[in-house]
Amino acid sequence: MKTIKAFAAKTANAPLVPFEITRRDAGPNDIQIKIDYCGICHSDLHQVADDWGGSIYPMVPGHEIIGRIVNVGKKVKKFKIGDSVGVGCFVDSCRKCVSCKQGLQQYCTEGFVGTYNSYEKDRVTVTYGGYSSEIVVDQNYVLKIPKNLNMAGAAPLLCAGITTYSPLCHWKIKKGKKVGVIGLGGLGHMGIKLARKMGAEVSLFTTSESKAKDAKRLGARRVILSKDKNQMDAFKNEFDLILDTVSGPHDLNPYITTLKRDGTLVLLGLPEKNPEIEAFNLVLGRRSVAGSLIGGIRETQEMLNFCGKHKITSDVEVIKPDKINQAYERLKLSDVKYRFVIDLRDRL
Amino acid sequence: MKTIKAFAAKTANAPLVPFEITRRDAGPNDIQIKIDYCGICHSDLHQVADDWGGSIYPMVPGHEIIGRIVNVGKKVKKFKIGDSVGVGCFVDSCRKCVSCKQGLQQYCTEGFVGTYNSYEKDRVTVTYGGYSSEIVVDQNYVLKIPKNLNMAGAAPLLCAGITTYSPLCHWKIKKGKKVGVIGLGGLGHMGIKLARKMGAEVSLFTTSESKAKDAKRLGARRVILSKDKNQMDAFKNEFDLILDTVSGPHDLNPYITTLKRDGTLVLLGLPEKNPEIEAFNLVLGRRSVAGSLIGGIRETQEMLNFCGKHKITSDVEVIKPDKINQAYERLKLSDVKYRFVIDLRDRL
Repeated sequence: MKTIKAFAAKTANAPLVPFEITRRDAGPNDIQIKIDYCGICHSDLHQVADDWGGSIYPMVPGHEIIGRIVNVGKKVKKFKIGDSVGVGCFVDSCRKCVSCKQGLQQYCTEGFVGTYNSYEKDRVTVTYGGYSSEIVVDQNYVLKIPKNLNMAGAAPLLCAGITTYSPLCHWKIKKGKKVGVIGLGGLGHMGIKLARKMGAEVSLFTTSESKAKDAKRLGARRVILSKDKNQMDAFKNEFDLILDTVSGPHDLNPYITTLKRDGTLVLLGLPEKNPEIEAFNLVLGRRSVAGSLIGGIRETQEMLNFCGKHKITSDVEVIKPDKINQAYERLKLSDVKYRFVIDLRDRL
Repeated sequence: MKTIKAFAAKTANAPLVPFEITRRDAGPNDIQIKIDYCGICHSDLHQVADDWGGSIYPMVPGHEIIGRIVNVGKKVKKFKIGDSVGVGCFVDSCRKCVSCKQGLQQYCTEGFVGTYNSYEKDRVTVTYGGYSSEIVVDQNYVLKIPKNLNMAGAAPLLCAGITTYSPLCHWKIKKGKKVGVIGLGGLGHMGIKLARKMGAEVSLFTTSESKAKDAKRLGARRVILSKDKNQMDAFKNEFDLILDTVSGPHDLNPYITTLKRDGTLVLLGLPEKNPEIEAFNLVLGRRSVAGSLIGGIRETQEMLNFCGKHKITSDVEVIKPDKINQAYERLKLSDVKYRFVIDLRDRL
C-alpha cells in the first residue's frame, strides 16, 4: 500500500480539500500511473453532491485521467514504463457476462467498478478517482493515448469523447448522414467534432444564439434555435440521429419530430425529469428514443486512435488543483469552453 | 359511378346504419372487388367516435377487407377476375417520396390515403371502407390472399397481422430471439402467432391470469402477470423485443427493464396518455422505445405469403352486418376472441 496525495469531498456538497488516500501496490496485472491531467466531468458535481444517491465519502472524483506509466506488473505485456495512458469511467467489471465478453463492459450485468465513488470487486475497497497524483489500474482497463495529441485536451476524451463516439458508431454515422446535437457543453462540443470527422452533416440545437459562431468553428453546419418554433418546424424529418447531451428539463417531442423516418434520439445524460413522449411521433415515423452509456474498452481505444488520426481533442481550460472548487462553481453555470482539466503534474 | 350498399356512422358515436355510397367506376389501373369479409379494428371505434379528431361523416369504417375481383382495368396485369384479394389500411399514397419509393407507403411524407375517413389524392373525394359490398382500389394497393387460408380469418391480417409482422421483421426476430407481447387482443394474439412461427420464444404480459391458457395455445411459452412485481423482476434483461399492443394507460418502465441490452419496446398503438420514460433504464442498457405503423404493400404481401405458408389466420368471431353495433359495444369491453369479422357475402 502506498499513500497518495489527492483532493476529496469529505461530505455531500463540501468543497474539495487536500486529502491523503492509499492505493494498492501494483500486482502482476496492474499498471501504476502518475497522473498528469484529469478532466472535470459534470457527473463529478452530481456525485459530490450525492444527487443520484449512494455517494461514498470521502470521495476523490475524476474519471478523465491522463498520465504516464511508472511501473508495470510482471504479466503486463502491451504497456511499458513511460507510455502515455488514460483511464476512463471504470477500472474493472465482472469479465464474465455477455456484455463484458463482447467488450461492452459499460453494460456489465453485475455493474462495472467505477473509477471513483464505487467499490472494487471485493465489495469493500472504495475506489478513488483522478484528482490525485497516482492511480493503479488493471491492464485490461487502461487505454493508450496517441502521442501526437495534446495530453490536457485528450483527458476529456475518456468520458465526453467516448460518450458521444459510441452512439455515433452504434447508429452507423458516416458520410451522407445528418446528426443533430442538443446542447453545446463538454459532451456537445465533442459530439460535433466527432460526428463531423465521421463525415456527417452536423447541426447544433441550442437555446442561446451566442453559441452559433463557436458551434460552426467546431464543425456544425447549422445552428437551430430550439426555442424558435419556426426554425424547429423547418427541420422536420431531417435527422438520422440526435445526440441529447442536456440534463436540464426540456421537452423531447419537438426534437423527435426533426428525426427522419427510422431516426433515433439518444439520451446521453440523465435528465433531471423523466421525459414524456408523444407516442404519435414515434409510431408515425418508426422513430426511437434510446439511451447510451459511455463505451467499452475496445471502443474507447478505437475512439482514441480515431482522435489521434484526425487530431481531435477537447477544447479545455487547464487549471491548477487549487482552483477545483472555483471550477465547480463555474461549471454549474456552464461557464467553461468546454471542459476544465486539472493539471496535476506538480504532484499536488 | 356506382351506388353501393354500406354501413355508416352519420355522426360521432352514432350507431352504424345502412347507407348508400357511390364508388368510382374502375379506371385502367383499378380493381373492382366484391367484399366478402371485413374485420372490425379497434381503430374503427376510435374514428367513429372522433377520438383522434378530424373524423369525416358519414363514415363507412373498415380496413381489413377480403373479397374477390369482379372487374379489372385495362392496365391491370397481375390480377384477374375471380382472384381472392385483400385491402388494408390505405388505398393510395404520393408514390414519389423516399418512403413510397422504398415500399414503405405507410410512412408517406404526404400522408397515405386511408381506406376510409380520408380523402383521395384529389383532396375532395371521401374514402369509404370495407363495411360495404364493393370497393374499387388501384392495383398497386391490392394484396393477393393465399388460397389455402380461411378467408374470414385472413381479414384481420390486413391490419392486426401486418402491424405485428412489420416490427418483428424490422427488428430481425428469428430463432434464438425472445419476444414479449403486452396485451392479448386483436394485435396481441397475432403478435404471438407470428413471432412464434418466426422461431422466437414468446412471452405474454397480461394483467389477467385467465388469459394464460389461451396465450399458450396461441404459441406463448410464458405468461407474465404484469401486476406482480416479483414476476416482472424475474424477467429483467430478458427480451430482445417487446410489442406493446395496449392503448389503455400503463406504465412502460417496468416493461423496459425486462429488455435486454440493446432491446426495443415498440409501441403499436397510440396510448391514451403519453408515456413517461425513466431515462435511466434506457441509458444503462442502450435500450430503445420506438413506434411502428402497420406496414408497406410489399411487406404486407410478404406477410400474407408467410401466413399462407404457415397456415396462420386470426382467431375470429364472424358476425352478420346487423350485429355491428353490438360488436362495437363488446369490443369496448374486450369481449371477443380475438377479432370480429363481418360476413358481407349476402351483399347487405
